[in-house]
Amino acid sequence: MPSLAPYFRDLDYSYALGLFPSAQLMQKRPELARRLLVSSRAENSEGLAALREMCRLHHVREERADKALARVSGKENCFAAVVFEKFQSQLSGGNHLVLHHPGDKGNLGTMLRTALGFGFLNVAVIRPAADAFDPHVVRSSMGAIFGLNLRYYDDFEQYRAQFPAHALYPFMLDASVPLSQAASQAQPPFALIMGNEGSGLPPAFAALGQPVRIPHSGEIDSLNLSVAAAIGMYAFTNQAQEREV
Amino acid sequence: MPSLAPYFRDLDYSYALGLFPSAQLMQKRPELARRLLVSSRAENSEGLAALREMCRLHHVREERADKALARVSGKENCFAAVVFEKFQSQLSGGNHLVLHHPGDKGNLGTMLRTALGFGFLNVAVIRPAADAFDPHVVRSSMGAIFGLNLRYYDDFEQYRAQFPAHALYPFMLDASVPLSQAASQAQPPFALIMGNEGSGLPPAFAALGQPVRIPHSGEIDSLNLSVAAAIGMYAFTNQAQEREV
Repeated sequence: MPSLAPYFRDLDYSYALGLFPSAQLMQKRPELARRLLVSSRAENSEGLAALREMCRLHHVREERADKALARVSGKENCFAAVVFEKFQSQLSGGNHLVLHHPGDKGNLGTMLRTALGFGFLNVAVIRPAADAFDPHVVRSSMGAIFGLNLRYYDDFEQYRAQFPAHALYPFMLDASVPLSQAASQAQPPFALIMGNEGSGLPPAFAALGQPVRIPHSGEIDSLNLSVAAAIGMYAFTNQAQEREV
Repeated sequence: MPSLAPYFRDLDYSYALGLFPSAQLMQKRPELARRLLVSSRAENSEGLAALREMCRLHHVREERADKALARVSGKENCFAAVVFEKFQSQLSGGNHLVLHHPGDKGNLGTMLRTALGFGFLNVAVIRPAADAFDPHVVRSSMGAIFGLNLRYYDDFEQYRAQFPAHALYPFMLDASVPLSQAASQAQPPFALIMGNEGSGLPPAFAALGQPVRIPHSGEIDSLNLSVAAAIGMYAFTNQAQEREV
């Protein structure tokens, strides 16, 4: 392996920064791990010992890498990281979260974390889109990315061709059906579709399925994207659970 | 007014960065505005013209301030801002969002935006806490801060002494009552209480009201704070609306 580069999108590897995301990587996808990087300023915590043990079991070599860690983590001051190979998965037939042109790294990471928490184990990302493997996304996902099936598509049609039967719920500000109503009637498998932070979904999405609106006051233009996605996933899973009771 | 300083917490003024947050300020609390700052690189957009007109109406002087804008906005490349006096409000008797030791600026801004969207017009922040007037918080709130009653308290007891009758709903990972149940039984006025990003709420909060849990899988440790707060506010307002129907 050549020396470690500052992260950029076209690299075939990235960095899980910090103990928690690194531990998630080693638990969920240890076969992707290439190296454990530890700073000489790292304290000998229980978390670090556990990470070292997982890396040892999977024959992942440890090296001291102060400069690489400082460069990749920036001001966030990260003392341990695991270098991992990027991956893409085949999505399964369960419920999907479809992110159409997500632009913000922090939002993307947060949405991945929420998706894992609400059992949306399949995430489709439609390009152009933020890079889910950017170390800051991996970190803001708290390593959730390693527990998901994640796949990038060049456009929505490419995704739809693979999953023609999913009921589609595009989230749109001007939709007539409120979230609680849509969620109470949804039958799996379904796909919740969220648009870009600034521009939302193109109007044509309204004809693709059942558009959904999250009711909020006119005092704000819109909810933050990761907030809207979370409320959508919560409502759809929660309604499903209540029907099962 | 002396020359503009880089932002720090003890200043009695701050900056609404960008057209949208600045316009919110001028609409909601124009009496706080001190100066309009415009970069020489700003384009003559409709938004800027509207902001200038609002500032003119309220006798807010415009000045070219490339250096101040670059310094305060950092890499975010902001071309217009309004300098405003910090404020604190008296909370009203409506429903409250209580943020106990929020640490992250982005989360705080997002929670303010969500609170305004769901009609939680009163936000109590318990110290130590991130600074709601930090320009990055104001920006991530999309100016929502100007539409809210916001008050800092030194501790929870100080807040509680002012509002002894609000039903308290502390959000805790180990609470036995799920969100949907708590929300369906809530009678206003109530206060949703959210803990710190890393440590949550101290265990003693469980005895102060009805602890609430947002059900999620064991695959994640917890939801992001701004996500949890949003789901909580959505569920409590949505259930209330459904009861009214």
